[in-house]
Amino acid sequence: MIALEQAQKMIDVALETGASAGWKPLSAVVLDGGGHVLAFARADGAAPGRFEIARAKAYGAVMLGMGGKAQMARAEAQGYFMAAVNGIYGGQTCPVPGGVLIRDNDGLVIGAMGVTGDTSENDAEAALAGIAAAGLTGES
Amino acid sequence: MIALEQAQKMIDVALETGASAGWKPLSAVVLDGGGHVLAFARADGAAPGRFEIARAKAYGAVMLGMGGKAQMARAEAQGYFMAAVNGIYGGQTCPVPGGVLIRDNDGLVIGAMGVTGDTSENDAEAALAGIAAAGLTGES
Amino acid sequence: MIALEQAQKMIDVALETGASAGWKPLSAVVLDGGGHVLAFARADGAAPGRFEIARAKAYGAVMLGMGGKAQMARAEAQGYFMAAVNGIYGGQTCPVPGGVLIRDNDGLVIGAMGVTGDTSENDAEAALAGIAAAGLTGES
Amino acid sequence: MIALEQAQKMIDVALETGASAGWKPLSAVVLDGGGHVLAFARADGAAPGRFEIARAKAYGAVMLGMGGKAQMARAEAQGYFMAAVNGIYGGQTCPVPGGVLIRDNDGLVIGAMGVTGDTSENDAEAALAGIAAAGLTGES
Repeated sequence: MIALEQAQKMIDVALETGASAGWKPLSAVVLDGGGHVLAFARADGAAPGRFEIARAKAYGAVMLGMGGKAQMARAEAQGYFMAAVNGIYGGQTCPVPGGVLIRDNDGLVIGAMGVTGDTSENDAEAALAGIAAAGLTGES
Repeated sequence: MIALEQAQKMIDVALETGASAGWKPLSAVVLDGGGHVLAFARADGAAPGRFEIARAKAYGAVMLGMGGKAQMARAEAQGYFMAAVNGIYGGQTCPVPGGVLIRDNDGLVIGAMGVTGDTSENDAEAALAGIAAAGLTGES
Repeated sequence: MIALEQAQKMIDVALETGASAGWKPLSAVVLDGGGHVLAFARADGAAPGRFEIARAKAYGAVMLGMGGKAQMARAEAQGYFMAAVNGIYGGQTCPVPGGVLIRDNDGLVIGAMGVTGDTSENDAEAALAGIAAAGLTGES
Repeated sequence: MIALEQAQKMIDVALETGASAGWKPLSAVVLDGGGHVLAFARADGAAPGRFEIARAKAYGAVMLGMGGKAQMARAEAQGYFMAAVNGIYGGQTCPVPGGVLIRDNDGLVIGAMGVTGDTSENDAEAALAGIAAAGLTGES
């Protein structure tokens, strides 16, 4: 299980990663292993709808056991499949980088992080930095 | 914040822009910075479902912080992403021109206008005319 | 059918009725005979969620062919029935005064008005004033 | 507008209020004036579904412009009205204490806080403590 202190560390580091690189303001969420929200923050200046995008990136990752990059590869190969997945999970998935699985030291998936606001690649990089700072392993 | 008087001015000018150009009857909505409806009007002769299209154009713009043209470019490049966004926001987005961000004199997004009824390009032109008439800046 | 000019007259008079009486800021919608939005306005200072309340008052009136007062009487007598109605129409009904049927000179229902913001009784009074000003007959 | 730093201060103080009093673990959200999520945290040991409860308490407050205590009074007097409101807002409201309006120094509503986990009365007390610590005024 992810402690709240760890989740907040991940989010702080993800947002700082973007701010120090001069990216657009980021928003970041951490979900537990059941896809439920542990913590979230939206940087000043980000658009109001960023929570839903961040959560969808992370939710699809947890529910499918696939990071955003693997989901995007599947969407490029079989768009109708990922469209169906979006409907199956009530519209709460987003198959692009920035949804990152969180694994513990035994390799078990214990949650996911979702980051949004800049390019999808940069979003994923910020998530990986946050997860590493909390002593865990990300799969983007 | 957008005053009701400003929102009604935007809508009046948008509908007049279409009428004087001989376009099909337009419908126009103004949303506040949180995506909530301030004012709406549907010109005589427009189809009954126009409110939902107008609002979706404007709602996606506010929630993502992107005008309809930028959303359409993203949809053309990565259709599965904008399809997922539609699901994420409960089906309430429409990635084509006619959804226009409203910025104040400091450049902050304070709402969005959505116009529908003629071609998407003309819809966007009518919205820009309305926003300018209210002394604000549109980003289509 | 209700012309846009009539719908806007109804809304202007309803909002002025509240403003001149010193009531809380009102929001008002006019729906056509199919329950679809013709026009709406939210007075400055009203809470952001007022469009949905106004529309639900009017939508339930049109869809059931019952004004808000008759709906409220039914809700007081049989709460489970009006709760089921709310679910049946996708959550888009509100069984209190302020939803007012609009009848033409032959007595036919051609739409409904929904007003919200002050007490339900005052909301209904403002709607009736607006409908009368447009030369039509309201049933609250 | 509420800055992220203020929102995080509100949440930290709300969770500490509960922890130092020996209450059950709390979860707390801060929404902006449009009902969109700014920040959230769920204390270790809280049930997985707490985000949705916290957000619903705060969302109903923002959308209606009424704190949780006023909503509960209305629900006790007219249960069918608050049941309808829940449907109108897509199931995203919760009419009990713990949803607290956030007002700025001019008295304007700029958002809402939602706290859940212990009794509704204690939830509201924790929210008020958090809002006060951020230099703003809560209406529970």
